[in-house]
Amino acid sequence: MKRLVGGAAGLCAVAVLMAASTVVLAQAKNEAQKSPWGPDDEIGTLNMMNDASRADVLKRVTGGKIYDLGVELFVGMPTCCAPFGDPTFQIWMTHNPARGSGKEVLSYSGDAISLYTHTGTHIDTLNHFGLHGKIWNQVSADDAVGVRGWTKSGADKYPPIVARGVLIDVAKSKNVQHLPTSYGITAADLQEALKRQGTKLRPGDVVLVRTGLMTLWPDVNKYRLLDQAGLSLEAAQWLVESQKAMLLGADNFGVENFPSKDPVNFVPVHTYLQAEQGVSLLEALWLEDLAKDGVYEFLFIATPLKMKGATASPIRPIAIPIR
Amino acid sequence: MKRLVGGAAGLCAVAVLMAASTVVLAQAKNEAQKSPWGPDDEIGTLNMMNDASRADVLKRVTGGKIYDLGVELFVGMPTCCAPFGDPTFQIWMTHNPARGSGKEVLSYSGDAISLYTHTGTHIDTLNHFGLHGKIWNQVSADDAVGVRGWTKSGADKYPPIVARGVLIDVAKSKNVQHLPTSYGITAADLQEALKRQGTKLRPGDVVLVRTGLMTLWPDVNKYRLLDQAGLSLEAAQWLVESQKAMLLGADNFGVENFPSKDPVNFVPVHTYLQAEQGVSLLEALWLEDLAKDGVYEFLFIATPLKMKGATASPIRPIAIPIR
Amino acid sequence: MKRLVGGAAGLCAVAVLMAASTVVLAQAKNEAQKSPWGPDDEIGTLNMMNDASRADVLKRVTGGKIYDLGVELFVGMPTCCAPFGDPTFQIWMTHNPARGSGKEVLSYSGDAISLYTHTGTHIDTLNHFGLHGKIWNQVSADDAVGVRGWTKSGADKYPPIVARGVLIDVAKSKNVQHLPTSYGITAADLQEALKRQGTKLRPGDVVLVRTGLMTLWPDVNKYRLLDQAGLSLEAAQWLVESQKAMLLGADNFGVENFPSKDPVNFVPVHTYLQAEQGVSLLEALWLEDLAKDGVYEFLFIATPLKMKGATASPIRPIAIPIR
Amino acid sequence: MKRLVGGAAGLCAVAVLMAASTVVLAQAKNEAQKSPWGPDDEIGTLNMMNDASRADVLKRVTGGKIYDLGVELFVGMPTCCAPFGDPTFQIWMTHNPARGSGKEVLSYSGDAISLYTHTGTHIDTLNHFGLHGKIWNQVSADDAVGVRGWTKSGADKYPPIVARGVLIDVAKSKNVQHLPTSYGITAADLQEALKRQGTKLRPGDVVLVRTGLMTLWPDVNKYRLLDQAGLSLEAAQWLVESQKAMLLGADNFGVENFPSKDPVNFVPVHTYLQAEQGVSLLEALWLEDLAKDGVYEFLFIATPLKMKGATASPIRPIAIPIR
Repeated sequence: MKRLVGGAAGLCAVAVLMAASTVVLAQAKNEAQKSPWGPDDEIGTLNMMNDASRADVLKRVTGGKIYDLGVELFVGMPTCCAPFGDPTFQIWMTHNPARGSGKEVLSYSGDAISLYTHTGTHIDTLNHFGLHGKIWNQVSADDAVGVRGWTKSGADKYPPIVARGVLIDVAKSKNVQHLPTSYGITAADLQEALKRQGTKLRPGDVVLVRTGLMTLWPDVNKYRLLDQAGLSLEAAQWLVESQKAMLLGADNFGVENFPSKDPVNFVPVHTYLQAEQGVSLLEALWLEDLAKDGVYEFLFIATPLKMKGATASPIRPIAIPIR
Repeated sequence: MKRLVGGAAGLCAVAVLMAASTVVLAQAKNEAQKSPWGPDDEIGTLNMMNDASRADVLKRVTGGKIYDLGVELFVGMPTCCAPFGDPTFQIWMTHNPARGSGKEVLSYSGDAISLYTHTGTHIDTLNHFGLHGKIWNQVSADDAVGVRGWTKSGADKYPPIVARGVLIDVAKSKNVQHLPTSYGITAADLQEALKRQGTKLRPGDVVLVRTGLMTLWPDVNKYRLLDQAGLSLEAAQWLVESQKAMLLGADNFGVENFPSKDPVNFVPVHTYLQAEQGVSLLEALWLEDLAKDGVYEFLFIATPLKMKGATASPIRPIAIPIR
Repeated sequence: MKRLVGGAAGLCAVAVLMAASTVVLAQAKNEAQKSPWGPDDEIGTLNMMNDASRADVLKRVTGGKIYDLGVELFVGMPTCCAPFGDPTFQIWMTHNPARGSGKEVLSYSGDAISLYTHTGTHIDTLNHFGLHGKIWNQVSADDAVGVRGWTKSGADKYPPIVARGVLIDVAKSKNVQHLPTSYGITAADLQEALKRQGTKLRPGDVVLVRTGLMTLWPDVNKYRLLDQAGLSLEAAQWLVESQKAMLLGADNFGVENFPSKDPVNFVPVHTYLQAEQGVSLLEALWLEDLAKDGVYEFLFIATPLKMKGATASPIRPIAIPIR
Repeated sequence: MKRLVGGAAGLCAVAVLMAASTVVLAQAKNEAQKSPWGPDDEIGTLNMMNDASRADVLKRVTGGKIYDLGVELFVGMPTCCAPFGDPTFQIWMTHNPARGSGKEVLSYSGDAISLYTHTGTHIDTLNHFGLHGKIWNQVSADDAVGVRGWTKSGADKYPPIVARGVLIDVAKSKNVQHLPTSYGITAADLQEALKRQGTKLRPGDVVLVRTGLMTLWPDVNKYRLLDQAGLSLEAAQWLVESQKAMLLGADNFGVENFPSKDPVNFVPVHTYLQAEQGVSLLEALWLEDLAKDGVYEFLFIATPLKMKGATASPIRPIAIPIR
């Protein structure tokens, strides 16, 4: 916030920034927290959705144009996590139609895939990162990791996500193709972009932050996790604690910026959001079409696959403009 | 059916049945057909969707209650195709948090999956089944199957699906828990159920047929492909040719009934729909909640994952009631 | 041995049986045991091999005929463990040569596989089954299961196996095609077969027991784990404690007979051998050719793939007759 | 070389080099060739093995020391072919023993793997590379690639390999840790190394060439396919056509040197050996122990896994010194 010098920003902006700076003073607790939604909660802030919240956003839809926020999945695509040993995306035919047209009446094609669940556009669930052996709601790995994975907070527990979405186009606000290597987006950056867009956040929003890095997709040498720009911890804190965002997403691999400065925690924003605040993440979103059309408020829909115990699910979210 | 106007209720029903029987006289051509949407078409009847069609259904939404039409994915779940050698659903941890809570600051969990693309609730794309070496739009396997699969009509080409959906609850209409083994649903069965429900089909609908077989899920010994009830060819013809359905789905594994009576084609309804009519299929839908609440008309949303070349994609569709 | 009543079985047989009955009196301890080869031992009885033992058997080779003891691996092959959710054998092309001969100079084919490590002919390593959280040498899962599996007693620690092998053809001894469903082979059965064959066991032997079940291979409905004939605990005890066998194998899926009578341990012979005695197992061996030719003593060679942490490795053992 | 009899040492060496240069003049034909072993042959030069050849080498064994020529397989290991989209080596637990020792009587661990078949130490089979749509013995992909891969020349057709092996230590001969980037080993290099070692090749040998590159293993940044030293075409021709080698292997990823100078064929030595000469290849061999001990002649044993249709199999060969 220290860069905020001079200018007649207006009382409102000042008030917002004061709230932000208050938040900044709060420290990440570095311990998994209990859920305000009770001891059985496994989905955190997604509890903010209900019939009324969905009806409210659905009735604001103004037309039938939809924006596709998912990327293609293909062999050789960029991968966050092959450097950590995780498998790359694979698809292969298990039934190959007979060679030579017409040899058989039926031409049967089938295929299988394998992928790290954090592949392409996806949602991170709350069991992805914990602190000191515990995930969100202080659930211990010793108690809740079974023979085949987590029994708590997996993608199978996630509801379809139908909520108001907001794009914060930081790259456009800064007039760059994409943010520079390892840049940590500040709360002030977000506030500045929101002001330029004329967009206001509301509690329960799905907040999508555009770094512009998808302009590098799918170049595996340029679109890569380890030095990407993304949200700073302070910016995440402002969105969640001050603005009451329900879900955070970005067009980079890990929402937050890399590398982390914390020698014992390479994903401090993940652990803050997932283990302390119960906030899930959307990663590798395709925000280019929304940005090009200047669409900043929309009905956001995403439906995680209910894979038992999964720490993430590939998704293909859509956005439909609202008034 | 819109041609069928006026007349007493009895007459109307007769006329409907006559229309149906007219359709029945048409024969499946047993050859892949050209698309009316041009030589580059890869998605067939999904071309019926446009901004206007989507706006029309979106504005009819009446509330915020949503129905989840997808099943869970888990190790040991029912599988259509393991008898054909296809892989079963697998999920496994690639990062297992350290044993003994608190051994490390960061508790890192990650996982990977592999699956036959026709697993759980999914959409079949138009390259799944062809005839005599050609799929929809007379695309030849010799030309369009590359090193790693189909270059045409894969899931990567599919748009998000946002359209009016209709449930035809045949099991309820017949007052059974589920249709009997291998039962072939007729056009008359569909018409009877629609009449009881008071539902009318419109061109461009996503038509979901309930057999009741999901009441057997996930018992792998009872919910299985090879002797399931489903649509007869005649019923599929009525829905597509007479009623102009855009997309057909069901709560069984293969939409159509099994086994086929055709010794050289074990999926005659698939080939009729996919290769001849350009109609994609939705399989293993969870229709129990819609049925219980008697919700027959809804906004239907499904977003296939854009996996390059894939013959199917797992999906988790949602339904939102409309007026 | 309690069945051994009356009769003039011959002094020799009595002596053998006395040794056996002595062993029988010993109870399985139902606790993982410490290794006599020291606290760092991870391979148990395979420590019995050394240059001298190998030289001894190598010099007894009499010719160049070799017997192949491995089965083929193919999609749809029998699998021990799909009923437990484990993946079936899969192989798929990742590079498919261009259709239409001669389209390209280079015709490039490549493929990938996935399999449960206990697939086809394989060796079980000592981390496969433990008791009360500990494997062989009292190594605790809490200490030695890391992010990606066991750090102890994996296939990567296993030496190539080069030793004297002995076939005990129990099916032939009993003059049956294969032993009956769930039959538990007794020590007396083994002794009888050895007597008929004129074969003597020596300390350090690889002992291969023929049930004849491979005559049912690869019929997936007939060759299956859950009711197979195999070694009783008592027979395993005799081979290991009295006869000092180094390694036990069989032509069935699990060496031992199924189902187990122990309600809390479905593999009591595995746990006895692996956790208490440090004896590894060879499963799904092809012994038909050895049996047909009456080859009972041979150089046995098998080379487990050094997959880090693996609880098993597929192998293709060979046998070369010795004098 | 047995034709080359008599003469002084100098003359002999000259003759050898002349023979080599004669061979060099022969051109690769760039067409798949017919097998001299008949129209059904699928294994090429491995037909040189028979009971007599095996007996001959087995009886020369002098002791019981064995050399392990296979590398470990682990997540993150060097991979030839991830740059081409092929999957990396993966191993994962499908049964994870309960957390907290002693929670259950039985501690059950199981795991699965997936890998590109050309992973770690492996054998390339004759269907790996063809020319103009045909592999060895002029088998056409159009005829012999089925629904799930090749029906000809797969690893399932390969016999266990038991033959005389010879190490040619080119790195030691040139007194370097490893050959330089992209270096193409010449026939003269091989001859020089053989002379220094005092080793003579015989028809039917398994010839293993040491580049020294395994001294870089497993550094994924240093041990990589695309610029490795290896055999030149001319050297391969000399080994096969003049010396009648049965099988060629090396301690690099692709036996031959990379990159190829042929713009339409990135593996000219592979196609020469596999499609024209019927010679299989052994890759990523661990030759360091043999080299250190100066063991140049040995019994070579390798047993490819009989995976149906596979273009390669991981193996763990062993070498036992012979006189």
